[in-house]
Amino acid sequence: MKRILTYGTFDTFHWAHMSLLQRAKSLGDWLAVGLSTDEFNKLKGKKSYFSYEQRKEILSGVKHVDFIFPEDNWQQKRADIIKYKIDVFVMGDDWAGKFDDLSDLCKVVYLPRTPNISSTVIKQIMKDFER
Amino acid sequence: MKRILTYGTFDTFHWAHMSLLQRAKSLGDWLAVGLSTDEFNKLKGKKSYFSYEQRKEILSGVKHVDFIFPEDNWQQKRADIIKYKIDVFVMGDDWAGKFDDLSDLCKVVYLPRTPNISSTVIKQIMKDFER
Repeated sequence: MKRILTYGTFDTFHWAHMSLLQRAKSLGDWLAVGLSTDEFNKLKGKKSYFSYEQRKEILSGVKHVDFIFPEDNWQQKRADIIKYKIDVFVMGDDWAGKFDDLSDLCKVVYLPRTPNISSTVIKQIMKDFER
Repeated sequence: MKRILTYGTFDTFHWAHMSLLQRAKSLGDWLAVGLSTDEFNKLKGKKSYFSYEQRKEILSGVKHVDFIFPEDNWQQKRADIIKYKIDVFVMGDDWAGKFDDLSDLCKVVYLPRTPNISSTVIKQIMKDFER
């Protein structure tokens, strides 16, 4: 069984998240997601709209995701890869190159994060929320 | 087994779609989604960003959804309810009252479509797509 790992906040879940998770899962058989905690986001100077529990609930509805666990610090990735016997570490290509040091432990893959369709998609989503 | 049915286009899938599907599924055990075809959308004067096949692929990643079938006309709802032995017909409350005539066949429920958080959610999603 090929085991995949990714990390993220997955706030206000949308199509690009789903697409990334789908492509991540397609690299193997089992996908774990390290979901950033609210405390960790605070540390990063970020604030998510939804709480960890709410984000976890939404993410739990994604078929491609087999396991969700909290990400609460920058250092845990190496330990997680070993603990969960990870074969492939996946991130969006906005992180390209940033995690190459993990490649002594497993394969490191950066997936295209979002195709270049921002404004059209945003307009569509806005229309939905304005109704 | 309690069988639930809803319809929609589910273009540029986002958090509010996920939330609606989750709440729909929680009304029973099995959730079918009638997914509007591109031809039907054209008939309605709507154009989705993603094609039927792309929308179906994304929707297939939602754990709450058990079955997806094409919606290609306004008239099929009564026949679908009978064919799939539906107990509860669910739509977002932007359709409130519009399908009350189906209540001779099954229960009709309108769920709150999106909480009033439009602008904040949109800003968050825009940030994601702008990265």
